[in-house]
Amino acid sequence: MSGRRPGRPAGRSAGDTRARLVEAAREQFAARGFAAASARSIAAAAGVDPSLVNHHFGGKEGLLVATMDLPIDPVEKITGVVAHGVDGLGARLVRTFLETWDPHRDAFSALLRTAMSSPDHAPAVEIARGVLLARLATVTTVDRAALVVAQVVGLATARYVVRIEPVASASVDDLVAVYGPAVQAVVTSAGR
Amino acid sequence: MSGRRPGRPAGRSAGDTRARLVEAAREQFAARGFAAASARSIAAAAGVDPSLVNHHFGGKEGLLVATMDLPIDPVEKITGVVAHGVDGLGARLVRTFLETWDPHRDAFSALLRTAMSSPDHAPAVEIARGVLLARLATVTTVDRAALVVAQVVGLATARYVVRIEPVASASVDDLVAVYGPAVQAVVTSAGR
Repeated sequence: MSGRRPGRPAGRSAGDTRARLVEAAREQFAARGFAAASARSIAAAAGVDPSLVNHHFGGKEGLLVATMDLPIDPVEKITGVVAHGVDGLGARLVRTFLETWDPHRDAFSALLRTAMSSPDHAPAVEIARGVLLARLATVTTVDRAALVVAQVVGLATARYVVRIEPVASASVDDLVAVYGPAVQAVVTSAGR
Repeated sequence: MSGRRPGRPAGRSAGDTRARLVEAAREQFAARGFAAASARSIAAAAGVDPSLVNHHFGGKEGLLVATMDLPIDPVEKITGVVAHGVDGLGARLVRTFLETWDPHRDAFSALLRTAMSSPDHAPAVEIARGVLLARLATVTTVDRAALVVAQVVGLATARYVVRIEPVASASVDDLVAVYGPAVQAVVTSAGR
C-alpha cells in the first residue's frame, strides 16, 4: 500500500521537498551561520536540486524566514521599506516595524531574548544581519545600515521586552514622529 | 572578647551601616522596584537613620548603584553628560557611554542579558530608568529621554551582546560621528 496518489509524478511531493530544504537549512544555519551556508550546500544536504531553493523560497533569505515560523514575512516588509529609497526611510521603517510587530510583541520578545542569551547564529540575529541590514545596505552604507539595525533593536527592546515607559505604550504616530528622524539621521547625516 | 576596638564610639561602624543599607536596598528594589522603594523604608529595614542614605550614598540613586557592584559610576557619568545642556548632548552621550563601557563590555553584556531574561526590577533596567532616563529628562521631555535610552540600549546590544559588524568593532570616533547626530535628533528634532 503506497501513499502516492495515482497520476502523481514520480519523485517527492512539493511539500516534502520544502520540508527537507527547511530542515537542512535549519541545521546548516545553526551550525555555520546564514552567511556561510550556501543554497547549494543546503540543497545537497536535502538531496534536491539547488534551483528548488529559488523555486520554493525565492532564495536563501526566504529559506531563512521559513526556518523560523514567523507570524509575518520580514523580507516582504523590508523590501517595501527600501523600495522607495532613502527619502523618508526612517519614518517608513519605524512605522512598518511597529505596525508589523505590535500585534506580535510577545513573539518578538521571545525571539530577542533567545538572541541575547545565545547570539551565535540565533535566527533573529541572522534575520537582522542577513535580511534587515543587507537590504538597508542597498540604499546606504553598511556602517550606517548596521547602526539603523541597532536603533531598531533598541526600540524593540524598550517597547516589547524591558517595557520602558513611555516607549512601551506610546502611539505608533508619536514614536514615528520622534524616532523616524533619528533613524533618518543615521541614514543621511553628514557623519564621516 | 569583643571585635570592637577601644576608643570606637558606641553603635555600628560606618562600614556596617553601609552594608546594612545596601542589603536592605537590594531586597526592596528587587521586591518593589526602584521607584516604589523609598530611602526612608530602606533605612527603616536596615535599622538606621534615613539621613544616612544621603550621608553614605548621596541619595537613593547612589544606593542603587552600590547594590550593583559596577566597575564605573553611572550617576557621575550621566551627570557629566547632561551638565553641559542639550547642545551636543548626542555626541557627548555616545562618546561617554562607549568610552565607559568598552573596557567592560563583558560586564555590560551580562547586565543586559540578565535584564532581558527577567526585566522586572532588574538592576540594569532600574539604572536605565532611574538614573539615565531620569537625568536625561531634566534637559528634554520624558518621551524623548526614553527614546534616547532605547538608542543607547540598541547600540550596546549591537556592540557588546549580539556583536553586529561593523558596529561591534568600529572606532568610538566613527560611532560618535554617525550615532551622535541620531541621538541628538531624538533630543532636539521638531517631532510632535
